[in-house]
Amino acid sequence: MREINLRPSPISSTVDFSAEGVQHGFLRLPHSRDDSAWGSVMIPVTVVKNGEGPTALLTGGNHGDEYEGPIALFDLARTLKADDVTGRVIIVPAMNYPAFLAGTRTSPIDKGNMNRSFPGAPDGTVTQKIADYFQRTLLPLAEIVLDFHSGGKTLDFLPFCAAHVLPDKAQEEKSFELVRAFGAPWSMKMLEIDAVGMYDTAAEEMGKVFITTELGGGGTATARSARIAKAGVSNVLKAAGILKGAVESGETTWLDMPDGNCFCFAENGGLVEPFVDLGDQVRSGEIVARIYPIGRTGDEPLNIRAKMDGILVARHFPGLVKSGDCVSVLATIVAA
Amino acid sequence: MREINLRPSPISSTVDFSAEGVQHGFLRLPHSRDDSAWGSVMIPVTVVKNGEGPTALLTGGNHGDEYEGPIALFDLARTLKADDVTGRVIIVPAMNYPAFLAGTRTSPIDKGNMNRSFPGAPDGTVTQKIADYFQRTLLPLAEIVLDFHSGGKTLDFLPFCAAHVLPDKAQEEKSFELVRAFGAPWSMKMLEIDAVGMYDTAAEEMGKVFITTELGGGGTATARSARIAKAGVSNVLKAAGILKGAVESGETTWLDMPDGNCFCFAENGGLVEPFVDLGDQVRSGEIVARIYPIGRTGDEPLNIRAKMDGILVARHFPGLVKSGDCVSVLATIVAA
Amino acid sequence: MREINLRPSPISSTVDFSAEGVQHGFLRLPHSRDDSAWGSVMIPVTVVKNGEGPTALLTGGNHGDEYEGPIALFDLARTLKADDVTGRVIIVPAMNYPAFLAGTRTSPIDKGNMNRSFPGAPDGTVTQKIADYFQRTLLPLAEIVLDFHSGGKTLDFLPFCAAHVLPDKAQEEKSFELVRAFGAPWSMKMLEIDAVGMYDTAAEEMGKVFITTELGGGGTATARSARIAKAGVSNVLKAAGILKGAVESGETTWLDMPDGNCFCFAENGGLVEPFVDLGDQVRSGEIVARIYPIGRTGDEPLNIRAKMDGILVARHFPGLVKSGDCVSVLATIVAA
Amino acid sequence: MREINLRPSPISSTVDFSAEGVQHGFLRLPHSRDDSAWGSVMIPVTVVKNGEGPTALLTGGNHGDEYEGPIALFDLARTLKADDVTGRVIIVPAMNYPAFLAGTRTSPIDKGNMNRSFPGAPDGTVTQKIADYFQRTLLPLAEIVLDFHSGGKTLDFLPFCAAHVLPDKAQEEKSFELVRAFGAPWSMKMLEIDAVGMYDTAAEEMGKVFITTELGGGGTATARSARIAKAGVSNVLKAAGILKGAVESGETTWLDMPDGNCFCFAENGGLVEPFVDLGDQVRSGEIVARIYPIGRTGDEPLNIRAKMDGILVARHFPGLVKSGDCVSVLATIVAA
Amino acid sequence: MREINLRPSPISSTVDFSAEGVQHGFLRLPHSRDDSAWGSVMIPVTVVKNGEGPTALLTGGNHGDEYEGPIALFDLARTLKADDVTGRVIIVPAMNYPAFLAGTRTSPIDKGNMNRSFPGAPDGTVTQKIADYFQRTLLPLAEIVLDFHSGGKTLDFLPFCAAHVLPDKAQEEKSFELVRAFGAPWSMKMLEIDAVGMYDTAAEEMGKVFITTELGGGGTATARSARIAKAGVSNVLKAAGILKGAVESGETTWLDMPDGNCFCFAENGGLVEPFVDLGDQVRSGEIVARIYPIGRTGDEPLNIRAKMDGILVARHFPGLVKSGDCVSVLATIVAA
Amino acid sequence: MREINLRPSPISSTVDFSAEGVQHGFLRLPHSRDDSAWGSVMIPVTVVKNGEGPTALLTGGNHGDEYEGPIALFDLARTLKADDVTGRVIIVPAMNYPAFLAGTRTSPIDKGNMNRSFPGAPDGTVTQKIADYFQRTLLPLAEIVLDFHSGGKTLDFLPFCAAHVLPDKAQEEKSFELVRAFGAPWSMKMLEIDAVGMYDTAAEEMGKVFITTELGGGGTATARSARIAKAGVSNVLKAAGILKGAVESGETTWLDMPDGNCFCFAENGGLVEPFVDLGDQVRSGEIVARIYPIGRTGDEPLNIRAKMDGILVARHFPGLVKSGDCVSVLATIVAA
Repeated sequence: MREINLRPSPISSTVDFSAEGVQHGFLRLPHSRDDSAWGSVMIPVTVVKNGEGPTALLTGGNHGDEYEGPIALFDLARTLKADDVTGRVIIVPAMNYPAFLAGTRTSPIDKGNMNRSFPGAPDGTVTQKIADYFQRTLLPLAEIVLDFHSGGKTLDFLPFCAAHVLPDKAQEEKSFELVRAFGAPWSMKMLEIDAVGMYDTAAEEMGKVFITTELGGGGTATARSARIAKAGVSNVLKAAGILKGAVESGETTWLDMPDGNCFCFAENGGLVEPFVDLGDQVRSGEIVARIYPIGRTGDEPLNIRAKMDGILVARHFPGLVKSGDCVSVLATIVAA
Repeated sequence: MREINLRPSPISSTVDFSAEGVQHGFLRLPHSRDDSAWGSVMIPVTVVKNGEGPTALLTGGNHGDEYEGPIALFDLARTLKADDVTGRVIIVPAMNYPAFLAGTRTSPIDKGNMNRSFPGAPDGTVTQKIADYFQRTLLPLAEIVLDFHSGGKTLDFLPFCAAHVLPDKAQEEKSFELVRAFGAPWSMKMLEIDAVGMYDTAAEEMGKVFITTELGGGGTATARSARIAKAGVSNVLKAAGILKGAVESGETTWLDMPDGNCFCFAENGGLVEPFVDLGDQVRSGEIVARIYPIGRTGDEPLNIRAKMDGILVARHFPGLVKSGDCVSVLATIVAA
Repeated sequence: MREINLRPSPISSTVDFSAEGVQHGFLRLPHSRDDSAWGSVMIPVTVVKNGEGPTALLTGGNHGDEYEGPIALFDLARTLKADDVTGRVIIVPAMNYPAFLAGTRTSPIDKGNMNRSFPGAPDGTVTQKIADYFQRTLLPLAEIVLDFHSGGKTLDFLPFCAAHVLPDKAQEEKSFELVRAFGAPWSMKMLEIDAVGMYDTAAEEMGKVFITTELGGGGTATARSARIAKAGVSNVLKAAGILKGAVESGETTWLDMPDGNCFCFAENGGLVEPFVDLGDQVRSGEIVARIYPIGRTGDEPLNIRAKMDGILVARHFPGLVKSGDCVSVLATIVAA
Repeated sequence: MREINLRPSPISSTVDFSAEGVQHGFLRLPHSRDDSAWGSVMIPVTVVKNGEGPTALLTGGNHGDEYEGPIALFDLARTLKADDVTGRVIIVPAMNYPAFLAGTRTSPIDKGNMNRSFPGAPDGTVTQKIADYFQRTLLPLAEIVLDFHSGGKTLDFLPFCAAHVLPDKAQEEKSFELVRAFGAPWSMKMLEIDAVGMYDTAAEEMGKVFITTELGGGGTATARSARIAKAGVSNVLKAAGILKGAVESGETTWLDMPDGNCFCFAENGGLVEPFVDLGDQVRSGEIVARIYPIGRTGDEPLNIRAKMDGILVARHFPGLVKSGDCVSVLATIVAA
Repeated sequence: MREINLRPSPISSTVDFSAEGVQHGFLRLPHSRDDSAWGSVMIPVTVVKNGEGPTALLTGGNHGDEYEGPIALFDLARTLKADDVTGRVIIVPAMNYPAFLAGTRTSPIDKGNMNRSFPGAPDGTVTQKIADYFQRTLLPLAEIVLDFHSGGKTLDFLPFCAAHVLPDKAQEEKSFELVRAFGAPWSMKMLEIDAVGMYDTAAEEMGKVFITTELGGGGTATARSARIAKAGVSNVLKAAGILKGAVESGETTWLDMPDGNCFCFAENGGLVEPFVDLGDQVRSGEIVARIYPIGRTGDEPLNIRAKMDGILVARHFPGLVKSGDCVSVLATIVAA
Repeated sequence: MREINLRPSPISSTVDFSAEGVQHGFLRLPHSRDDSAWGSVMIPVTVVKNGEGPTALLTGGNHGDEYEGPIALFDLARTLKADDVTGRVIIVPAMNYPAFLAGTRTSPIDKGNMNRSFPGAPDGTVTQKIADYFQRTLLPLAEIVLDFHSGGKTLDFLPFCAAHVLPDKAQEEKSFELVRAFGAPWSMKMLEIDAVGMYDTAAEEMGKVFITTELGGGGTATARSARIAKAGVSNVLKAAGILKGAVESGETTWLDMPDGNCFCFAENGGLVEPFVDLGDQVRSGEIVARIYPIGRTGDEPLNIRAKMDGILVARHFPGLVKSGDCVSVLATIVAA
């Protein structure tokens, strides 16, 4: 059982979440360190409020090397007018801001993986303090939570929006409706095996309508993936009644990862030769990738073979692979 | 004027380049250092020789984070039989082997950029010693030189094979014939502005038929780009008469980078939103990418606009950009 | 509620705190690590005892880049004779000794900020183990505690001695008497907002008479600031009856930091141009510093303006500033 | 009191500990990090099972820079046939596998000292997760536990096998029988002062027969020390009835470290001149080593003198010593 | 003898030095590296030109941790109007721009000390390429050269402007006139012992009127030192006839460093206690500073004594000192 | 051909090599760097002179992780009296002093391997500047040069003293006489393959009598190896007539490394199991060491086999080996 009485968060906000209009500011987290005794981590935040209505909490940069979310949200923060909104939009384009500045998955300060740090702690590491602020301050303000992810520097994904299979079926249904509204080319019903520490879980346990994405990866964004992200956030706000106008979602194909056979892991390090690309069909037993030992020429490579039929939805990105890395993820197409 | 009498190379080979048959071995470069007083850099090499005929020198990993070349060449080294060959094939899948092991463009030992280190020096840095060995030992053995490149971790390219416009038009013509034979989807006629220190220049100044590639990038390879590389090297060896069988090249589109206007550079750092993808057409004045300042929300981004009409052939890869980085490269389609 | 039964401290002392005379030795903290399996952190300590009387615990190097305390205490430890003393003086010139050796605010071993690590833990990090030893072994021995601080490498202060406003007014009064005795040019009444983890709080909660200082900064000491520190410690010991002789304090001016408006923070990084120096008067609305963006010439700087009338008592020290850094602190002069 | 209900371990095994025959596989520990979002630590494991009989759990690399254990266990894992065995042998040649790969005492991931990390935690650091897996999964499977140690890069030892003096004298007796069977040139009866966090303690508290070794050091193995390790493990398995054949132990000399006077610590850093070698006799008051200050020539060295009569059983290894390092350990010869 | 025919500089300028008006731009130096294959170093530059008249080349950040120059020059670049100028002003506020961004004396890229890198080399390190551009492109454009220095993070200076004693007395006289015009509180006639590689020497050997400064140090600027720098550059431009208006210089005191006795070096590392401050008078034999050994308490410090009468013009800044560091510099007051 | 007119060395000595008596001081090399703008490298030196006679130049720490030389020479520098000497002894216990302080083979400043840096350069790196000072200042003062080596952290040697086979047979004969006088258990006649850049070569080309040693290794010294070093230097000075008294050399066995077959190199990385120890006899074809792959259990190790009969004189030290490392060196016993 978690303790009831925690210290107050050390984070203060330079914006007033209850004020009307557009405000750009910071979540200021004091951070005393060798290069600044009285320094702070300054996490950019925008809040746009107009009258009564639901609150959407929009986040990117939960992992610091995933870019579609920050692009869509820096753009939205700059362009959203108070008059466009009914209710409130809270935008944090780069949740794990130190990681985002460094272009790394985890925080360079404490190696914290934001999405394994919830519910956080007000007297913990920098990453835990940020998680705690979302847990106790921002999440309670919201009805709708959209958290952008992509594959980051070491994975690449087919672009999809997703929500979790939940015990509360009404909550689940609302979430999948927003996934549909988002309108990514692919949509995923996810069942997390180990959800401990995730932002997703924190939001869902508070009863929020929570959706997330995987929109590409490799530590870059493309024109296409940026467009998907920007359209998706706009559609979600429209579907929620916060923005005016009709949802403009295209076709989506629904996917499912039925069991652990969807994953292939490397048991050797080396040079990867991919045999299938994202979106390709593969049959059980076919080679999805080959790993060449790199200490000498002439040695046999290791073939990584599919353990099920499916399409490739995610793959290891860097040209070299380490023992233990996930090489490929397959999924099956399901009815919506 | 370069000195005539250099010291012998400190590199010794464990293979005999004049022996018949298939040999897998190493270029051994003694490298005394803190973690190994009598250590060496061991660069894998394969030589396959069968009777009389031309010699092809095939290299990947000139830059250590470019993977199509190493994939095609580790595969070729493992599968090539002496009987398949007429003449000789020398395969060095990872020229700047310390960089390849580290997954970095330049050598972690001396930060040496192999393609700016020619003609090298036998008493210089590790990178310069390797360059010197190619300059004085391997290049003189070859008639045909194929050096694989891709964009590496920080650039992404449309897949093309290329040769240089040369003063010796007979040499140039032979090179472009091999480019055609390689059969990449795109082909490029390159005019280097500053060719000092390049392997290309070293080979061309010795009168070799030299071709190179850019086959993708981002520090990964795809199934598609690996297939292009493997087919390309096979076609080149067939065109040269070293391998039997017909060249199997598909269509290629010829490209040209007419002048410095093809490049757009960033003058601000920030978050990049790409507006066009590789292969997309763009008109002069259109936005190719937008750079968001990341210190706060609400600030205006900087628009990067095309300075000519063309198609996008290369782009900055990481999601964040630094002031001075090349953001995009355009090219125009030309007749073959 | 904190647990009652903790493991014993792993720290052992080579001096006997109950023995008469002068002893120089170490607090030895076993520290197994890659470069010494059976190594230790050896924190220098001096104890001088003579008969009955109060115990003063004198510390410097709570932050490792603050030098007036270590100078005064290495000097005192070397020169203090048992005959000079009535009671006991315990001197630890460099509390966070690993940080002091490294010249950094926090410990290079665990990034521990000593003044946020109390009450510490016997099975925690190195910094927490040291804090625990002060908490459970040294503080209980003392009646009077003087802990030297300065601004460190990233802040600079007007030289002042200080004590806290306390709930126990008798304890507070004794503390301010010692501040007066210390005799720095400036004296401060401090009300800590967030005192969690501080050595100050640990001492005060045990009912000790606790005083502290800020005597300069920038990661250096001057002849002047060193003289203030040496005179101050001598005066304090005289006022406490431990050293003979009259207190020789000069004039002091009393300062107060009334509320959060005394602080100015940077919301942009850049090059700082200070407009006022330590001790200068400034009026509300006046520029205290200007921050130039450094990516290009010609851009407008950001003016940092005072939010109250006051004199400058502390300022950011390094020539470059980061977003979130404290730029300046103002205080008002009050009656003693 | 430790909590009863812990989360399940995140580690999964690719071998089935209850299956008959020889299996080579991995303990797979998911480890999300900047260079692999979905990466794992892959700890090699071999299990050999044949019918009913006791289980021996054999481990090396508890500290990553100690090599006799890994040599004996990689060798045993490769050569042990199911038919040779009655019962079960579980072999983990490198417990703290990240440390073993790095050649360091502690884990490069979290600086975790495996032998101070028990009972571990399933949601802790990587080192704590491995400890937890041994605590809750592997130790319960075993009757006999042999954990190899040596001095590592910073200490050197006379080769000995050891067990602890235990409250349960039957358990103690069985342990010392296995020490005798191991047959190292020297054998030690150990009384741990501070056993908190040790693997030894974890095993002993479960009632296991636990033995350990110190077989050399300096971050290397010799032909002699490797032979001792290989013979020792074979003898132990024979003595336990798991392997057939007679125990082939030679003579051993029993040692005891009577009290804290056996240790000499450095209070100065500098250059060490050893005066006695491992196995040499020394009398109380004699110089065991001399420490030269290295800032200048001509200064007097510090003599480190023995505080008891004994033979040198361990010594500081690197040529330079730091203040606080253990310089030498003496022991006395006792009856078996 | 230096070679006549060098390669052209790889640096290109985005400003046209011959165009009228105010231009802000960059010196762009291509810099291919692991984190940007086609990256550049972008050195900000401003040129203001109006009709005929002399050219002043103004530089700061020759060492990257000296701030008065960059403050005065970023300010001047932003505020100077073409109409104010007769002739031309070229402003490079941060010559060794990579060092300036890093806040370090030397370049983080190549550890290059700009002021020991002249005449530079177009195919050398990044620092040498910048030096070469000044040597062959910018210096030839100028008649008057002002290069700002301060003490940087490890030294602190009395604020002075200086020029060199030169063989060409007319050139020397013009330089000292500008020193007088600059109007710092102190002025220095310098005789360099070892001028090899200095920017000063490069400028002077071309016959330029060259002046320089030391205006403080410690890696910070004060309001006072920033005012001196800003007034100084304005006065110099007025004295040169480039700006209109009267020179407004106050009193200055001329100083001389007569011989090597002005320097005191540390032969021990430790904690420094300064005995004199900048501007204080000291007599030969007096203690200028004391160095405490920091390995233990109770040891005698080393006294550093003046070797001549003089005033303290420079001192070691950090609180700890290393063997070999310059501790203090004395100078004598001379007639103007 | 090397240039005749070099700049003077930047190194100055605080001792006068022509003065009578004992002097302890420093070779001071100015070294401006980020952490000390006016810092120096201070290399300890002792000179002892008494009347007329030959000069011996004694050096250790040519590689910074080899300890027998520094032990013998710090000890000699401290104890040698002027009256003991006829002629002059110059002692530099740690030639590559920055490497010695860091405990590394090469300099942490510039990665310079001192014994590949001759003749050095006065305007080169720190290591080259030191080499140049020995080349042009210290070597010319000496008739006899003794340079101590050991195996360092990555190699271990049988203890031997050695000299080179030289073209000048008189010089060679004098050198081997001193090797005999040194009196190590083993003595070696060396024929360098690649002597470029060595201190040995620099001394021999000036006609000096040059001897060197390999006295152990692994980054440590033993009581035995320290005694060999101390006796050896005393014997050499006696044999040279500089110290009084009879040479007290024991038996020595002469060794020869006939050709390249004496070396075994690793072509795989992994865990080394040594099969022979230093001094053991081995026959051609026998296993000297085995390399286990460490990515998994159950794989076959690689056997390293002797290519000649001989005794093991040197071996790879660390427990892990990298591809390209020298694993073992054999030698044959020869007549004196």
